[in-house]
Amino acid sequence: MAAPVTPPRGMRDILPAEKATRERVLARIRSVYRAHGFDEIETPVVEDAARLFSGLGGDNEKLAYAIMKRGLTTDDLAAAASPLDLADLGLRFDLTVPLARFYASNRAQLPAVFRAIQIAPVWRAERPQKGRYRQFVQCDIDIIGEPGIVGEVELISATAATLDALGIPGCTMRLNDRRILTSMLAVLGFAPESHAAVLISLDKLDKIGTAGVIAELTERGMPPAALAALQAVPAFAAFAAFRAEANTHTAPAASEALTVDSIAAVLPPGVDRQALADLAAIAAAVSTAVAPAVSAAVSTAVAPAVPAAGALPLVFDPFLVRGMGYYTGPIFEVVHPEFGYSLGGGGRYDGMIGRFLGTEVAATGFSLGFERLIDLVELGVGDDGSALALLYDPEADLGAVMALKAQLVAGGARVRLLKRPKNMKAALDQLTTDGFTRFAVIGAEQTAGTADAAMLDWRRLDPAH
Amino acid sequence: MAAPVTPPRGMRDILPAEKATRERVLARIRSVYRAHGFDEIETPVVEDAARLFSGLGGDNEKLAYAIMKRGLTTDDLAAAASPLDLADLGLRFDLTVPLARFYASNRAQLPAVFRAIQIAPVWRAERPQKGRYRQFVQCDIDIIGEPGIVGEVELISATAATLDALGIPGCTMRLNDRRILTSMLAVLGFAPESHAAVLISLDKLDKIGTAGVIAELTERGMPPAALAALQAVPAFAAFAAFRAEANTHTAPAASEALTVDSIAAVLPPGVDRQALADLAAIAAAVSTAVAPAVSAAVSTAVAPAVPAAGALPLVFDPFLVRGMGYYTGPIFEVVHPEFGYSLGGGGRYDGMIGRFLGTEVAATGFSLGFERLIDLVELGVGDDGSALALLYDPEADLGAVMALKAQLVAGGARVRLLKRPKNMKAALDQLTTDGFTRFAVIGAEQTAGTADAAMLDWRRLDPAH
Repeated sequence: MAAPVTPPRGMRDILPAEKATRERVLARIRSVYRAHGFDEIETPVVEDAARLFSGLGGDNEKLAYAIMKRGLTTDDLAAAASPLDLADLGLRFDLTVPLARFYASNRAQLPAVFRAIQIAPVWRAERPQKGRYRQFVQCDIDIIGEPGIVGEVELISATAATLDALGIPGCTMRLNDRRILTSMLAVLGFAPESHAAVLISLDKLDKIGTAGVIAELTERGMPPAALAALQAVPAFAAFAAFRAEANTHTAPAASEALTVDSIAAVLPPGVDRQALADLAAIAAAVSTAVAPAVSAAVSTAVAPAVPAAGALPLVFDPFLVRGMGYYTGPIFEVVHPEFGYSLGGGGRYDGMIGRFLGTEVAATGFSLGFERLIDLVELGVGDDGSALALLYDPEADLGAVMALKAQLVAGGARVRLLKRPKNMKAALDQLTTDGFTRFAVIGAEQTAGTADAAMLDWRRLDPAH
Repeated sequence: MAAPVTPPRGMRDILPAEKATRERVLARIRSVYRAHGFDEIETPVVEDAARLFSGLGGDNEKLAYAIMKRGLTTDDLAAAASPLDLADLGLRFDLTVPLARFYASNRAQLPAVFRAIQIAPVWRAERPQKGRYRQFVQCDIDIIGEPGIVGEVELISATAATLDALGIPGCTMRLNDRRILTSMLAVLGFAPESHAAVLISLDKLDKIGTAGVIAELTERGMPPAALAALQAVPAFAAFAAFRAEANTHTAPAASEALTVDSIAAVLPPGVDRQALADLAAIAAAVSTAVAPAVSAAVSTAVAPAVPAAGALPLVFDPFLVRGMGYYTGPIFEVVHPEFGYSLGGGGRYDGMIGRFLGTEVAATGFSLGFERLIDLVELGVGDDGSALALLYDPEADLGAVMALKAQLVAGGARVRLLKRPKNMKAALDQLTTDGFTRFAVIGAEQTAGTADAAMLDWRRLDPAH
């Protein structure tokens, strides 16, 4: 027996039923994002190695696949000081570095405030494990050129509407702001140069708990007074309760409860007031975009309506960190009670998009992890009764068979032809598995001139199979 | 001024208007192929280098991008006998090698006759030139496990229906059969071992003409008697007229004229009769699948109807060769009078799909070149009146603005927010360019409680811009 033939390590094939579901879900996500004013773009899957390995991607750069220069000689190989000397391209590991490059390349043709959709695969050579693949799809929306919180409000509303359109209830959005984190660390007495390290520890709160974080920070030689002050922060002391609430919050009006006062109440005094005000204003504006009454007079009625926003409770989470170093303002992530990880996240990163332009450009973005999302979507395989199988006798006239198929397709059906098999049961089982709902048999006596699909004797396939 | 930032050499970005058109065209192609009984699959963009560089891909293998192994040391570099020793993966250069690998990996879960759709990018490091890119999308359909001509008939019908659905009139499909070519060369007196070389020359007929082909074959030392016999073949003598007909044929019923006798009439005696009979039978069956009367009684009416087949004239072309060495039976390509190259092509390749399985599997396929196709498609940017712009005063209540946007989205619109700009004309010009059809201004006096999109004063943007 031949050795099994498999896709490359850590990657996978997508079979018909799953592919159909994925395409339907992607089409729905696109449609919601577009309705909310975002425009889809596409970049090549590769970028020049010099840009890909420029430090913008953080740890993900180390997981990138490098593509070899062409025309290399063995002398080139021997002379190379490092493997990257032999690469001039690489597969993208996220959609943010390509977006920054795209914006620098095409800015003159884009609107002053550019709302981008990117729905595309990325590649990371991570250790393969269940449910984690080395090629996976991300769904990113970004708003470039908008310094105000209207950017965050539009991102959150579009994300809420998308989750609603996909029928994924029960999600919560955790909100925080990098300015809150850094100003809090400052008032607690952590030196500015230690903030990055403290944030790395705080990012592990879910895994190691408050005691674990304090132990780690103690080991790193942080000032005892600052550690004591951290432990006295109301939100830190009540951390477990905070996270439990953030994962299971179901009150649709929860975002209305986010005010400057309610946020400040769980923090030490002296935290960045502008950041508090921004979060409260974001929550207030998002709440007005949730499930508005539709005025019939404004319905354009030319396109299928998509949700304006779903009920996505916003929960302030003062210890939400988000890994990437480039965030500068509000940050957020979507969690679902069934999962220990987020479905997606994002935030403001004003310093980054303009990097290839050499100028600062305001930007905020949100990325949904499609591979996680798809597991939660309950979309049927499209059993709308339109998938029909024609089992034809090998002696039947081929023109007659094709004419019958053509009539059915023209009538709106999806039609699979099948030679009448010896093993009828196995064939019908396969058809049922593949989502076909009815079949008819075409006998040897059919001739092209008389083929009429209306005369076929339809039988139902058993979906309970 | 900073140096211009560009995509990698030979690749390109796809901006919003083009991306929207591409996605709409791809959705339509998918929908037609699905109606005709094909199932979409997806494979990783990379395959193991050992499979990619196994000789199945012909000359395209030389254009493939190789991906470096991870964890290479400088010792590995110095020790490598060739650059490919450092690669363990590569970007696919076509969709056929991945399909063969996919079929070998997943055969047990697929129907006995498997009709595959693959719509996906491929990569080739070709010399960049106008209109030719190093990343481009192919739309492939393949039928695996069907040895009979019903496979070709379904491929051609689905292709004709796709061109019809995209509104691309004027195409012609050239038909030939590898068995006709090789049996013709045998009866003309070319030795079997010279057939591959003769086919390479015949494939250049369009470029170098009959005199050029004869000169090239003479130079290669082909027997003068065989060359004289070739020149006496009616179709060779009338070659220019044949090709002109194949490019501009517009008679919708042309395929009915393809019979064994009409094909044999332009060939030397003694050519493979089974191949002639197959081509005639394919043409006859395809003609019955063209534009059938729809019987209302069989309309399932649950899905939008797609064309069963369009009028795609079939023209016999005895010197159609198609480059790849793996073809074994009927071959075909679609041409359009506006282009000097084909829009797509394919054929039967019974020896190839089973290569990774170690067994022969019947297969026939057709590939449309999406990048060529898209230039011929006249799909508007979706100006259905549903794209609305809201110009809001910076002093307006953000909640009110979001509530208005939400009402419009819920009513079926696509809505772009825009801060009321200083340069109104530039902003309106950009909106028009981006496909927005109406705009309204939200004043500073709006408050969240009273926001009602029905009260907005809509103005039309000038599409004649």
